[in-house]
Amino acid sequence: MTLNAADPAFEAALRADLSPDVFRPVEPRYLEEPRGLYTGQSAVLALPRDVQEVASLIRHANAARVGVIPYGGGTGLVGGQVAEHGPAPLILSLERMNKVRAVYPDENVLVAEAGVILSDVQDAAENANRLFPLSLAAQGSARIGGNLATNAGGTGVLRYGNARDLCLGLEAVLPDGQIWHGLTRLRKNNTGYDLRHLLIGAEGTLGVITAAALKLFARPAKSGTALLVVQSPAAALKLLSMARDQLGEMVSAFEIVNKMGFDFLSETMPEVRQPFDTPPVWCVLIELGLSGDLDPATSLETLFESAMEADLVTDGLIAQSQQQSDDFWAIREMIPHANRKVGSISSHDISVPLGAIPEFITKAGEKIAALGDFRINCFGHVGDGNLHYNIFPVTGRSRQDHLNEREQIKMTIHDLTHELGGSVSAEHGIGRLKVKDLERYSDPAKLSAIHAIKAALDPNGIMNPGTIVPAPI
Amino acid sequence: MTLNAADPAFEAALRADLSPDVFRPVEPRYLEEPRGLYTGQSAVLALPRDVQEVASLIRHANAARVGVIPYGGGTGLVGGQVAEHGPAPLILSLERMNKVRAVYPDENVLVAEAGVILSDVQDAAENANRLFPLSLAAQGSARIGGNLATNAGGTGVLRYGNARDLCLGLEAVLPDGQIWHGLTRLRKNNTGYDLRHLLIGAEGTLGVITAAALKLFARPAKSGTALLVVQSPAAALKLLSMARDQLGEMVSAFEIVNKMGFDFLSETMPEVRQPFDTPPVWCVLIELGLSGDLDPATSLETLFESAMEADLVTDGLIAQSQQQSDDFWAIREMIPHANRKVGSISSHDISVPLGAIPEFITKAGEKIAALGDFRINCFGHVGDGNLHYNIFPVTGRSRQDHLNEREQIKMTIHDLTHELGGSVSAEHGIGRLKVKDLERYSDPAKLSAIHAIKAALDPNGIMNPGTIVPAPI
Repeated sequence: MTLNAADPAFEAALRADLSPDVFRPVEPRYLEEPRGLYTGQSAVLALPRDVQEVASLIRHANAARVGVIPYGGGTGLVGGQVAEHGPAPLILSLERMNKVRAVYPDENVLVAEAGVILSDVQDAAENANRLFPLSLAAQGSARIGGNLATNAGGTGVLRYGNARDLCLGLEAVLPDGQIWHGLTRLRKNNTGYDLRHLLIGAEGTLGVITAAALKLFARPAKSGTALLVVQSPAAALKLLSMARDQLGEMVSAFEIVNKMGFDFLSETMPEVRQPFDTPPVWCVLIELGLSGDLDPATSLETLFESAMEADLVTDGLIAQSQQQSDDFWAIREMIPHANRKVGSISSHDISVPLGAIPEFITKAGEKIAALGDFRINCFGHVGDGNLHYNIFPVTGRSRQDHLNEREQIKMTIHDLTHELGGSVSAEHGIGRLKVKDLERYSDPAKLSAIHAIKAALDPNGIMNPGTIVPAPI
Repeated sequence: MTLNAADPAFEAALRADLSPDVFRPVEPRYLEEPRGLYTGQSAVLALPRDVQEVASLIRHANAARVGVIPYGGGTGLVGGQVAEHGPAPLILSLERMNKVRAVYPDENVLVAEAGVILSDVQDAAENANRLFPLSLAAQGSARIGGNLATNAGGTGVLRYGNARDLCLGLEAVLPDGQIWHGLTRLRKNNTGYDLRHLLIGAEGTLGVITAAALKLFARPAKSGTALLVVQSPAAALKLLSMARDQLGEMVSAFEIVNKMGFDFLSETMPEVRQPFDTPPVWCVLIELGLSGDLDPATSLETLFESAMEADLVTDGLIAQSQQQSDDFWAIREMIPHANRKVGSISSHDISVPLGAIPEFITKAGEKIAALGDFRINCFGHVGDGNLHYNIFPVTGRSRQDHLNEREQIKMTIHDLTHELGGSVSAEHGIGRLKVKDLERYSDPAKLSAIHAIKAALDPNGIMNPGTIVPAPI
């Protein structure tokens, strides 16, 4: 059964029940997304201030069978925040639910409303001498509710896990408008199905997260950063094992950068000072966060020496100051910007088992070469098996020249990923962009369970229609 | 609609489809559980050797509407493994699916079938110079499938998380007999609802876990153990914060022991040599697992000195050898045995927010004292907010003298736990024992979601009937 539009009658019904202050005209920013792949049409915009207002809005939408788009920071990369097609929806922005409700330093817990910007969560933790380790490019505008709804990844996953691993409890409104008061601060709680983990990663299709109890951590006493030139991706993985044998969980990040990343930086941002005179084919950015009087420089030197002995690395730079460490990270963080300037034909957020990374990189390179002349920038969270594997035109050509090849390139990469036991969406989610990929690559039993759960919890299909599962038609 | 019995006709249908070797007569051990609270009646017993046989059994059971009891090591403490009432079920024991399928040391992954005994998983990890950190009293007989189905806890949760946090992927058979091939070794995989986390902790009510990809960790280079006498439970929590500020994640375990534990040991096992001449009112067992050349004795001495300065501890013993460390742990592990010898009137597996522990201990003591003369042994995983809070008769009386008071004692403890934002089942699960507790204390929205999910994935209600949700009637 199809959904109804959020028409003037629907809006009038909402307004009869809620304060006029909840509603605002829809600005264009609610109808756009960062990659420009989706543009929303008309919609009713509501900006509730508390969970009761959220529940009231959802109850109305469910009764009227109007689609609801939960809206966080709008930074998602798979179109989960914009409905291009279908009847006009209710956009439900969490931006006014932006309070850190409480911080419990001795419990290592922080309770935040869904609309708190990720960097504000980080800051609130730091003010209590604690760490909230979720860290990603969009942290200055992404909101924690969206981070949880999409199970965000980023550079802290290696040590601290994905967004889902950082959440102890949730407050949420289910598709029928019931409020789930699940904001527990418990480390152990085995009382029935884990609704928290079901809502996390459901991308707003099973309800709206309105607040979360988040895990905090002790801040490492000292940190250290190095850029190590590795012989190969396989050597990078051996280096990671070696680092963990020496330092356990104190390895905080392990990112890989390919020569193409340095080349793109030279090409698009020549003003950026590069760390190596000659860009290495492969290097890793390693970050340590140490406790117990351990010294970062010594620890990194020890690691470097054993890696040299084992023939894993050939060269390396150990940051000698916080500035230099920041500079190394800036290089890593500027690569996506450089990519955008060059203009990718197709970008892929894939993961494979760690051991399959070398094979993936070799085979993907061969398969893309067989399709034509392209440049490949492969970089990312190699310690998590998560690569951003992006295909670009050669110098002198543009992405527009290759629009026809895009689908084939994507399928080539995704098929290979799948063949190697990998995931075609490592950290960005399914959104509206990858619904067909999910159907193509998902295990059939899992897919049928997804559909059964969606139908059970959201029988009218109002929650973020078209995301993860196709919209009701 | 009620279930049908696993009668001779049903067994004949199974036998027509499966090898005779799959079936064995039901020995008493499949119909008993450790606390003796439940005794099963007749049943058909199947011991499948692979996932195909599991799927075939489930398909038959679903078609015939016969209840299925997935059976692991039989060590659960809430009756999830024994159906006392209702039509005779099919007991599906995973004990023959006991292969470690593969170990990937550089990936920190181990793939095990559901029937592998937990200590065998630990051993296989150790043989690859890795750590599988799930650790609990029953590890010599509990099987990993059951550990996952019940989201087992134990002493390693503080550092490494609950069982669910140690699982990357699952192979499982859903209630309709479909096999979910979800045995990925991925660290990041955002492709639709997290079926893994839904099955983990579902206690066999949404399907049968047949294999799991498990996370391994680097083995800490050195470990150290201390028994520190703390001023109070509040001081214990401050000590934990202090330990983490100094050592981050390298604090591996943090258990609390009350004087009553030492007294029970003297009473029931006088041959055990006790660490303190005079048992302290409260002490904590702290275990460090260190990397990067850190020295355990030095680290523990530093911690002890700062804790003395802060007036948190008054005395302490730092293990000077592995033997002494083992002895400290043996004390902690013998307390449940001593409890069993004394004979509790009512035992409780509760958790509260860390900050609420002092209040819980004070108020629970007062409330129990108001009910009569009892002895309380409160001990456990205080670093996780998880206490085993058990009530015993005074010397000279027995549990039989208090059977009438049992329900009131339990409700008193559970009501207080709930009032403080806690959980009445921290690590043992709901099983059949706590179905009414779940109904009493669960958030209504969560409870209705649980019922909706159960109905959606197991419409005939065949999977572990009577566990978590009431059996079909």
